[in-house]
Amino acid sequence: MFDSAEMRQAVSKADYDAQVPALREALLDAQYDLLAAKGFPVLVIIGGVEGAGKSETIQTLNEWLDPRHVHTHGFLLPSDEEAQRPPMYRFWRALPPKGEIGIFFGSWYSLPVVSRAFDATSEAELDRSINEIRHLERMLHNEGVLILKFWLHISKREQRKRLRALQKDPDTRWRVNKAVEVLVDRYDELLEVAEKMLRETSTGEAPWTVIDGYDHRHRTLAVGRALHDAVRSRLDRPEAAQLVTAAPVAARGENVALVRGLDLSQRLERDEYKDQLEKYQGRFARLVRSKKFRKRSLILAFEGSDAAGKGGAIRRVTGALDARLYEIVPVAAPTEEERAQPYLWRFWRHVPGHSGIVIFDRTWYGRVLVERVEGYCSEADWMRAYDEINEFEEQLAGSGAIVCKFWLQISKEEQLRRFEEREQTGFKRFKITEEDWRNRERWEAYEHAVADMVDRTSTSIAPWTLVEANDKWFARVKVLRTICERLEAEL
Amino acid sequence: MFDSAEMRQAVSKADYDAQVPALREALLDAQYDLLAAKGFPVLVIIGGVEGAGKSETIQTLNEWLDPRHVHTHGFLLPSDEEAQRPPMYRFWRALPPKGEIGIFFGSWYSLPVVSRAFDATSEAELDRSINEIRHLERMLHNEGVLILKFWLHISKREQRKRLRALQKDPDTRWRVNKAVEVLVDRYDELLEVAEKMLRETSTGEAPWTVIDGYDHRHRTLAVGRALHDAVRSRLDRPEAAQLVTAAPVAARGENVALVRGLDLSQRLERDEYKDQLEKYQGRFARLVRSKKFRKRSLILAFEGSDAAGKGGAIRRVTGALDARLYEIVPVAAPTEEERAQPYLWRFWRHVPGHSGIVIFDRTWYGRVLVERVEGYCSEADWMRAYDEINEFEEQLAGSGAIVCKFWLQISKEEQLRRFEEREQTGFKRFKITEEDWRNRERWEAYEHAVADMVDRTSTSIAPWTLVEANDKWFARVKVLRTICERLEAEL
Repeated sequence: MFDSAEMRQAVSKADYDAQVPALREALLDAQYDLLAAKGFPVLVIIGGVEGAGKSETIQTLNEWLDPRHVHTHGFLLPSDEEAQRPPMYRFWRALPPKGEIGIFFGSWYSLPVVSRAFDATSEAELDRSINEIRHLERMLHNEGVLILKFWLHISKREQRKRLRALQKDPDTRWRVNKAVEVLVDRYDELLEVAEKMLRETSTGEAPWTVIDGYDHRHRTLAVGRALHDAVRSRLDRPEAAQLVTAAPVAARGENVALVRGLDLSQRLERDEYKDQLEKYQGRFARLVRSKKFRKRSLILAFEGSDAAGKGGAIRRVTGALDARLYEIVPVAAPTEEERAQPYLWRFWRHVPGHSGIVIFDRTWYGRVLVERVEGYCSEADWMRAYDEINEFEEQLAGSGAIVCKFWLQISKEEQLRRFEEREQTGFKRFKITEEDWRNRERWEAYEHAVADMVDRTSTSIAPWTLVEANDKWFARVKVLRTICERLEAEL
Repeated sequence: MFDSAEMRQAVSKADYDAQVPALREALLDAQYDLLAAKGFPVLVIIGGVEGAGKSETIQTLNEWLDPRHVHTHGFLLPSDEEAQRPPMYRFWRALPPKGEIGIFFGSWYSLPVVSRAFDATSEAELDRSINEIRHLERMLHNEGVLILKFWLHISKREQRKRLRALQKDPDTRWRVNKAVEVLVDRYDELLEVAEKMLRETSTGEAPWTVIDGYDHRHRTLAVGRALHDAVRSRLDRPEAAQLVTAAPVAARGENVALVRGLDLSQRLERDEYKDQLEKYQGRFARLVRSKKFRKRSLILAFEGSDAAGKGGAIRRVTGALDARLYEIVPVAAPTEEERAQPYLWRFWRHVPGHSGIVIFDRTWYGRVLVERVEGYCSEADWMRAYDEINEFEEQLAGSGAIVCKFWLQISKEEQLRRFEEREQTGFKRFKITEEDWRNRERWEAYEHAVADMVDRTSTSIAPWTLVEANDKWFARVKVLRTICERLEAEL
């Protein structure tokens, strides 16, 4: 894999000087076209062995491009806000928006490769990381991100030579710190792990390009050209970017019993309700202030038919909490900044840190519910969403978040009753819109969407709870009880 | 000041139950109108002595309002990302956008009051904090934020009684932690400082309301009503919100010599340029990797006539740096999220942490340059901006940031030459727009705006450097030399 990158390919100064002006102009042209089209973000990942010129290459790219629209991120240690969240959080934070170019120096590859090379993690853990990365990159690709990955390589012998040269010169000695020395010592182990990583993450949607890092002029031209060609070709033929994602056939019909079979006649009397509400609110309040919750977090996801009582249920949940402890995220139309990012970005930005509680009023499931039913996205898009969502929730759970998801279901008759009531009651009139009546006409399509959603995304780490909500009191108590039981099981 | 708040005012349960439904409905109505109008944000600050019911009051407000559009923030210790930035950073981060309600539990008042009461800071430092807060609140008010400040009060005797009651009950004992005990011990000192603070920050634009916290029903009704009345009255009569800010008379004419008197004939020969560029880039690179820079940061602000060479100068600055060390923030039209916030918000979000370098390509001075000249904001708005900007930069400097501001000036003839060149050169054609030609017609108005800007905002902590830029080489070297000299003086 690295053989051709040890051939010490070089470009003469004269050749370089002759080629650079045209390349710079073409790159700038491509960059401005990208910016004007705002069609997709470009993500450039630069990896490679120590001394192969990663930093210099990035610097030259920043000189060649309009640096106002290049966002270079070096990832060293996570900040405390980042360390309290899933490892991918800090990369999500740094993703370039549509029309812009992001350069990641160090990336989701660094930690898995280095930890494995130093035996801090097992082969199985490496495999898991590889799997996560493949998921992430496929998802980014499907969301339209143009991903370019460059691995700058030099031989072990060349690396040692360079290190010694740097150490000799007082002006460059600072560059060879302890961390660099340690990495250089493990050249062989690092290369072995890197080779596996590169092999297994060189996918159709995000291939690696290994580049001979021996000569600055050669490697910079190579990276610059590859970047130009990729951006230009995507700009010219956007349709070629679409992977033919074979959408698995959706289960139709059978699983709808999940929804239709709910016993919506379940109810609570007033006294029972008051008793149980108080009981579970108290239990909930104690659980989230327990010592064991201090390094965990709680994510509550609420979905449901229109007028099923999500708002009321959420208020009973927050009623148990100090208002400083939670954040409610109402999910409506995405903002401009959110629209310039992959679908899940706007949910990632609200992922809580330690002992945080975030309540989503409507969620990332919008894609497989309203967007599917109303045809706001393609079938391929909502079909791949199940998998992406499972992956998202797995990462949340992996970092200590407790994820509870609720679907509140009412009958079609009960919905009609509530719609009419809302239209007549003063301070509820805001709650009913034209859209609600329109959604109601698609009742059956929603039933199928809900059944598929539950089928495909109710996992042991992030289970769905279907809530029979014809009786509001019953529903609220069921929600609170479920949260308490999950917390008790987890803490 | 607190006498009337120790009268143990109470509301009977019957009265409360009779009044609450109408108040809730009116509050919700006002909240939805606020949301629909998206005209201004509402910021509710809740302060007060321990045990006066701050937490309970906030909880009730969250129950009464639609909690999806209420953002409650409790401020305890800053995270490490926050601690590396000016103290106000975390409050800026938490400001509610237009149409929404933010509740601050603990705020910019907490730390100054507590530190002074515990003698950790001097009276002069308290005065400085008061001054900063007055500045901030006036600015927020002028930006349209509706600020409501409530101080919940109970007497010392009542406080001790409540504390003992809490300690007796095993279910509430946890609420009386060490921090609470310490605060209760210093009741008198805290109250003395708080009184001064309240007196001096009870301004026309952000008055305090002291509320008797003895009875839950009384205090909640009082806060709820005040919130409702303030929101409703602003919604109904938005024009009444405008403070008549007496704009100081702008200096006209005389100071324009600052700009016109620049010796634009200054230039460097090619060899001199290459020599000096290399020299200062090297010095700059060494300075920012010195140990002393590790707890500092660098903010470079670039403004200049169109085609004055800002981009080229910025590239020479970044050419000296590892691309992971800096961020370039190109300032163009604000995004939707930025438009929903006060003017300076979009600059605050890019304030760097320790050892960060942020380069602003156009800056917060837009308000006193293009917005002033083109009439995009009122005279009162740009006149108050000088003061707000000075305050902003003072906070940056106070937290260790080194702020360098550059104005690049070219002659009218040189600008014409460059415009024409840009129109003819392939990869520069993007750099010239209709707007550039339009701005050019207002050359003199810009000269006056620049002179006023420099006059009013060139401070010892954040000085302006006027750069004679007819010769690009001269300009680039002057920029780099200035940065090096500032860094050397500061580190």
